[in-house]
Amino acid sequence: MPDRAVRHFQEELDQLTARLLEMGGLAEDAVQTAVRALVERDPAAVDAVLTGDGPINRLHIDIDRRCFRLLALHQPVAVDLRAIVSAVKINTDLERVGDLAVNIAEAVRRYAGQPPVKDLIDIPRMTDIAQAMLRDALDAFVRRDTALARRVLNQDDTLDALKTQVFRDLLACMLADPSTIQPALDLILISRHLERIGDHATNIAEDVIFMVSARDVRHHAAEADP
Amino acid sequence: MPDRAVRHFQEELDQLTARLLEMGGLAEDAVQTAVRALVERDPAAVDAVLTGDGPINRLHIDIDRRCFRLLALHQPVAVDLRAIVSAVKINTDLERVGDLAVNIAEAVRRYAGQPPVKDLIDIPRMTDIAQAMLRDALDAFVRRDTALARRVLNQDDTLDALKTQVFRDLLACMLADPSTIQPALDLILISRHLERIGDHATNIAEDVIFMVSARDVRHHAAEADP
Repeated sequence: MPDRAVRHFQEELDQLTARLLEMGGLAEDAVQTAVRALVERDPAAVDAVLTGDGPINRLHIDIDRRCFRLLALHQPVAVDLRAIVSAVKINTDLERVGDLAVNIAEAVRRYAGQPPVKDLIDIPRMTDIAQAMLRDALDAFVRRDTALARRVLNQDDTLDALKTQVFRDLLACMLADPSTIQPALDLILISRHLERIGDHATNIAEDVIFMVSARDVRHHAAEADP
Repeated sequence: MPDRAVRHFQEELDQLTARLLEMGGLAEDAVQTAVRALVERDPAAVDAVLTGDGPINRLHIDIDRRCFRLLALHQPVAVDLRAIVSAVKINTDLERVGDLAVNIAEAVRRYAGQPPVKDLIDIPRMTDIAQAMLRDALDAFVRRDTALARRVLNQDDTLDALKTQVFRDLLACMLADPSTIQPALDLILISRHLERIGDHATNIAEDVIFMVSARDVRHHAAEADP
């Protein structure tokens, strides 16, 4: 590419990255608000999440369009091509995180109509971990930092263990006191939504490693590499 | 592109499509086997799904590589560009369907250690619908058939309604007889995995519509179109 085209490409790529970070911030806020609504039993916060996904959805479409424009007009190769295809995938992951925040808010709304099952300790912890994973994965994308991306991958096991712990605890509650069945079910669903947010952060981290190093770390792909 | 390059591009695109169909067939089989394992209480079928995701994972990596090669070497534009970016996304969706088949098999394994909760009617129905949606979505991709893709989108509401029905029925079972709590929980999780398979088919159908018509039907994007 001539110098001017390179500059123009870089500017558009920077704008795309800024949009992805904006979307990541919105998705993270929605998750935070949904879990705050759970802990504080705050119906206004539930409504805010249920009706507030417009900006994320608009960014989802805008970012996809920008990716297509960059691919079609600049025909990038190597790391630039991988960066844009990664942006397409990250965009999908962030949109799903926004959807999961809505799913959490729906479960919170049902939960709020029931007596509380137990003190909420593990679900806020899961939320903190999932959010940190998401933030770190996007940071790793911006800084092209594979070490940080690998730390995100390691965090996923912690989240998974907490999900299993939450499931066991709530199953015990349900068996001990059947009046907790319905609210405990909602907490189990919420913990699964949080685990899936961690999965999306993991996807992003894997994309970052591929973008930077052209190495596919999914499914231990290295084993199949020549 | 010169004629020869066009032919070469088309050949590679056909190979890519064949791989996606192969992957779709494997993912569909895995879902089918996992639910058959549930209905027939067949531990060998559970094991087959739990240990059988290698081919899907290898195709996932192979298809991604093909997409990058097509983008980098042929620098496609317009519908060809949209077809390849769609293939990247469809590849991700199909890999997740494979993961969901594994998740179903894990729940089936736990369920098999418990007394059965009730006759399984809605879950096999959900399976049939989710599989038909997946097959139709891939068919729509191959034939670039937006009418078929739109039929897939309509099916998603049926699946969603069944999921809600399953949830209500099983909640009633749990409340009526607490000894069903644990197995009923597994059936609820299975129905949610099936619903998510329908979501992936929906994603594919939306990609097909975008690929063919360059119209984004997600989030009622048409409202925001000029």
